[in-house]
Amino acid sequence: MTDLITALAGGVGAARFLTGIVKKVKQENLTIIVNTGDDIEMHGLHISPDLDIVTYTLAGFVDKTKGWGIDGDTFQFLDALKKLGVKAWFSLGDRDLATHVYRTERLRRGKLLSEVTAALTHAFGVTAKILPMTDDRFETRIVTERGTVHFQEYLVKRQAQDRVLGVEFAGVDSAKAASGVIEALKNASLVVVCPSNPIVSIGTILSVNGVRDALRQSDARKVAVSPIVAGAAIKGPAGQLLRGLGLEVSAFTVARLYSDFLDVFVIDHADIEQKERIEKLGIEVKVTNSIMRTLKDKVNLANVVLKA
Amino acid sequence: MTDLITALAGGVGAARFLTGIVKKVKQENLTIIVNTGDDIEMHGLHISPDLDIVTYTLAGFVDKTKGWGIDGDTFQFLDALKKLGVKAWFSLGDRDLATHVYRTERLRRGKLLSEVTAALTHAFGVTAKILPMTDDRFETRIVTERGTVHFQEYLVKRQAQDRVLGVEFAGVDSAKAASGVIEALKNASLVVVCPSNPIVSIGTILSVNGVRDALRQSDARKVAVSPIVAGAAIKGPAGQLLRGLGLEVSAFTVARLYSDFLDVFVIDHADIEQKERIEKLGIEVKVTNSIMRTLKDKVNLANVVLKA
Repeated sequence: MTDLITALAGGVGAARFLTGIVKKVKQENLTIIVNTGDDIEMHGLHISPDLDIVTYTLAGFVDKTKGWGIDGDTFQFLDALKKLGVKAWFSLGDRDLATHVYRTERLRRGKLLSEVTAALTHAFGVTAKILPMTDDRFETRIVTERGTVHFQEYLVKRQAQDRVLGVEFAGVDSAKAASGVIEALKNASLVVVCPSNPIVSIGTILSVNGVRDALRQSDARKVAVSPIVAGAAIKGPAGQLLRGLGLEVSAFTVARLYSDFLDVFVIDHADIEQKERIEKLGIEVKVTNSIMRTLKDKVNLANVVLKA
Repeated sequence: MTDLITALAGGVGAARFLTGIVKKVKQENLTIIVNTGDDIEMHGLHISPDLDIVTYTLAGFVDKTKGWGIDGDTFQFLDALKKLGVKAWFSLGDRDLATHVYRTERLRRGKLLSEVTAALTHAFGVTAKILPMTDDRFETRIVTERGTVHFQEYLVKRQAQDRVLGVEFAGVDSAKAASGVIEALKNASLVVVCPSNPIVSIGTILSVNGVRDALRQSDARKVAVSPIVAGAAIKGPAGQLLRGLGLEVSAFTVARLYSDFLDVFVIDHADIEQKERIEKLGIEVKVTNSIMRTLKDKVNLANVVLKA
């Protein structure tokens, strides 16, 4: 039987990591459960940032410099929208926009996000199965000194400048895992938690009803890659968020957040001194270079995870 | 008191004609009531072709060669949408798209089309008042041998190839004139019927509850420009539509369709032999060059109408 791999993924960090994974395993054997807490309606369009980042990356046309958006995209639409006096603080490329318009129209007609995602990935030639964590409304909100705002507003509009007081998951009580999510966790021989934000990317997925239980009960080997290296996030606002929640910004904190289900945690050489502390949580530790600068870095990291 | 002018307008022909009018009168004194029977939802976006053509033309950035769309616009969005397997037979430029997304979002939030139109024209620096004929749903459908289809589908998708058996105005029973329409007809000293399709551009406006009565009762001088020259439409499918309805394709037919309210009909020299026939309808006739090739043509035609 082919080994099935299921990954839990946020956006840019996860997508970069998965670039290495798909060099080593067939996309057909890979299921990626993607955070949708960042999803936002913008100008009447349903935007799914993490789904798009992962899809565009596996399709091979993501803007590699930014890590999101479409390579070589133009911004005529956004420029024209701004000229209409619209505050357009969220980048939307002209080609990228086709994805959002396509998705929005189908959701309005009653299709599920998972169905639209399957159609999009198919059209883009991606053969890995990409699943939204839920088809239901789920919105990550950041409680800041200036008020409670959508995660994208905190991150993109306010550039993560506001002091974080808390994180809220609107819709968490009723959101059900999208069709295929629980099965993918149960049937996998390996579950990989990508190096994504443990609160607003992985934490959201884990909070969906049934996901955490399925992970605990799954016979799969569960391996996570730390998104925190040397006390700071490789990318994004994980540091600010962890601090805001009163948590230490460390690989150890991430391991602890996953300790109820995790078998192996992959940390960077820079965090070697946390190895013992993490092992005391009952988690095996692999130490490697986890900073992904080149494709070789990504493939090396993928190898460590796949062999863990 | 300043002379107020109210125009009834379809798309390209009307917009070209109005280019001449605004060289002779201040936009502030001009109200344009625009056909919305061509409006269509496309990819979940509310498109108002005639409102946009008139607005873009008066704003000075219409694609002059085509007569619609934005000059120098790009088509990255549409290209990407087609790659998703969507049948995108209606041209939507990237900058143009900002108008449709802006309009759609506001209509979904409960704004009226007339309110959105006012906001758009203001943003584009157009100072003429552009009014949709109605804020209500109104859809022009063409009955053809191949079935009944939306006017845009007949015109753009099927390239006006199907034999026309009839025209239907869905929504006509309940559509109310948009706020300001009836007042603009009553308060004008001159009402101009642009050289637009008498059935699907002007006929739609005239069919809106109260519009025809207001025209009959208005003290304004009512002047129309024939869209038919020498037995053929200057542009568009007016010939096919008139023939489909069993009508003669002639300036006379158009005059007759307007004869219950019209004071003056402007025809081309080519139709001089119809002058007498039209005058028998009780309509004064002005004969001029009505083919608008250059700006000078447009201004000459405007002069004839304004002096009528």
